[in-house]
Amino acid sequence: MSLSCDDIRAAADRISPWVHRTPVLTARSLDDRCGGSIFLKCENLQRVGAFKFRGAMNAVLQLTDAERAAGVVTHSSGNHAQALALAGKLAGVPVCVVMPRTAPAIKRAATEGYGAQVVSCEPTLADREATVARLIAERGFALVHPYDDWRVIAGQGTAAIELLEQAGPLDLVVTPCGGGGLLSGTAIAVKGISPTTRVIGSEPERADDARRSLELGYIVPSEDPRTVADGLRTSLGERDFSVIRRHVDAIVTATETDILDAMRFVWERFKIVIEPSSAVPVAAILNGRIDVTGKRVGVIISGGNVDLDPLFQFLAAKSL
Amino acid sequence: MSLSCDDIRAAADRISPWVHRTPVLTARSLDDRCGGSIFLKCENLQRVGAFKFRGAMNAVLQLTDAERAAGVVTHSSGNHAQALALAGKLAGVPVCVVMPRTAPAIKRAATEGYGAQVVSCEPTLADREATVARLIAERGFALVHPYDDWRVIAGQGTAAIELLEQAGPLDLVVTPCGGGGLLSGTAIAVKGISPTTRVIGSEPERADDARRSLELGYIVPSEDPRTVADGLRTSLGERDFSVIRRHVDAIVTATETDILDAMRFVWERFKIVIEPSSAVPVAAILNGRIDVTGKRVGVIISGGNVDLDPLFQFLAAKSL
Repeated sequence: MSLSCDDIRAAADRISPWVHRTPVLTARSLDDRCGGSIFLKCENLQRVGAFKFRGAMNAVLQLTDAERAAGVVTHSSGNHAQALALAGKLAGVPVCVVMPRTAPAIKRAATEGYGAQVVSCEPTLADREATVARLIAERGFALVHPYDDWRVIAGQGTAAIELLEQAGPLDLVVTPCGGGGLLSGTAIAVKGISPTTRVIGSEPERADDARRSLELGYIVPSEDPRTVADGLRTSLGERDFSVIRRHVDAIVTATETDILDAMRFVWERFKIVIEPSSAVPVAAILNGRIDVTGKRVGVIISGGNVDLDPLFQFLAAKSL
Repeated sequence: MSLSCDDIRAAADRISPWVHRTPVLTARSLDDRCGGSIFLKCENLQRVGAFKFRGAMNAVLQLTDAERAAGVVTHSSGNHAQALALAGKLAGVPVCVVMPRTAPAIKRAATEGYGAQVVSCEPTLADREATVARLIAERGFALVHPYDDWRVIAGQGTAAIELLEQAGPLDLVVTPCGGGGLLSGTAIAVKGISPTTRVIGSEPERADDARRSLELGYIVPSEDPRTVADGLRTSLGERDFSVIRRHVDAIVTATETDILDAMRFVWERFKIVIEPSSAVPVAAILNGRIDVTGKRVGVIISGGNVDLDPLFQFLAAKSL
């Protein structure tokens, strides 16, 4: 099986009563600095603060009656965990999330806050997979993988459909790339609607598994990369890779410094809260890896979930 | 002289080619928590990141030809400095800003970045006033006071006109209160358009000069108050006080902890960057000083200029 642009259009119709049509923002200061016209599709303003809600909702709405009754399981300590938890709550489907026991308490609490059950595992790939397999065997859950799932990929692609409607014709579209769900869904949607628009993936230099995988022609996993872009530490999924090979024009990278500078630039100039992963495509524009001179460029801002403790601890210490 | 709602409508027409019509945002999570329907008028998304640009632009556009040629002067180390600098740049009017020599270098650089001249003074009220007076005498500048100026007050009131257009009928409107320009402009606009809508000012408990001034019937200055809401440390202006006495229904306060909690709530749930001063009206809703149960409530989010150094230093230290 694969996925067509029509599948993504169908996903857009399916999830439209549940998702926010997020705004597209522009800023003179960004355009002046890079010489292009940049359109930020603000999925940080999506429900649960990330595009992940689109894919999760699309998957949950396609369950059979038997699957709905048994419930779904996934593994994630990031935005997909809360996204699936909320999707399940809205659709009346039980949700179980496997999280490493080392995950921050706040992530666990947020996921449980949406009514999901959280099951801890050891922070290893082997134990995570074993725990998920055990839950499926014992409780009959259906798996909703965070990115290696056609229903999820279709849902993620719906943001690009909206972006093209909102921004008008684009010369290129750039997304972050972690597991590849957003990039592959975006690529199918954009190439289906506007075949001459280039689609570019961006990742931290320290987690450049997509770039290396494309060069070598097979998936090269990242080994626990240390990057501030915590949403992009995962390696490509198989389905995602098959789409990216076919439809994505280039993968570019950004250093840690580039990422933080770009994140700060967006916070200061757009006054929106974006997470480090979202800053990666902006970083690749500002550091010159993508030439945007005179071009109309769409960027998918993937999410806005940032740990604000350090800033607020500082403000409290200064003030109280 | 005083000010009417028609003056504010005229100001709105005058500045409309120059200002952003900022969006009004809502969030389920805020409404659920306080029991009312809250509409945030996002002046953090205004040019220079604050409502102050409205008043500054309105003042600059009303200068006589002789005044335009000589230029304007003000004193501010906050948002009014950059607002007047940009307004002057756009209108082709020289701008001089008096700042205490202790002001952060970044504020000075930002103001100079818009082409204004910055003159340092000692960090005392006496030297500030003497420096401004000297510049007016020597160079023929016209003063554009940050809040005690009818043109500035009229400009600030234009945000409330937009808010009422965008949100529909409101039971009450809440603003922060520092020097009183935003509150007095808002009060004249709201009472002119919708006389039954209540107008409430909010200030830090540690800088409650407006509350005390209203109680006593004369202006009681704040003596260098220590509050995280740095935009609200100033005391009421005379013109502002005369309007507030007549048109404002109540002044409420929030503690430092209330302010930081509200600021964080807005960052996390709306994913927008707001400065501490902007969080004060939200704090007064969340801490129960304003009863919003079942009410439609407009809140003017005054600005989004926050020092992000601590957060980004933390992120860099963790990542690099």
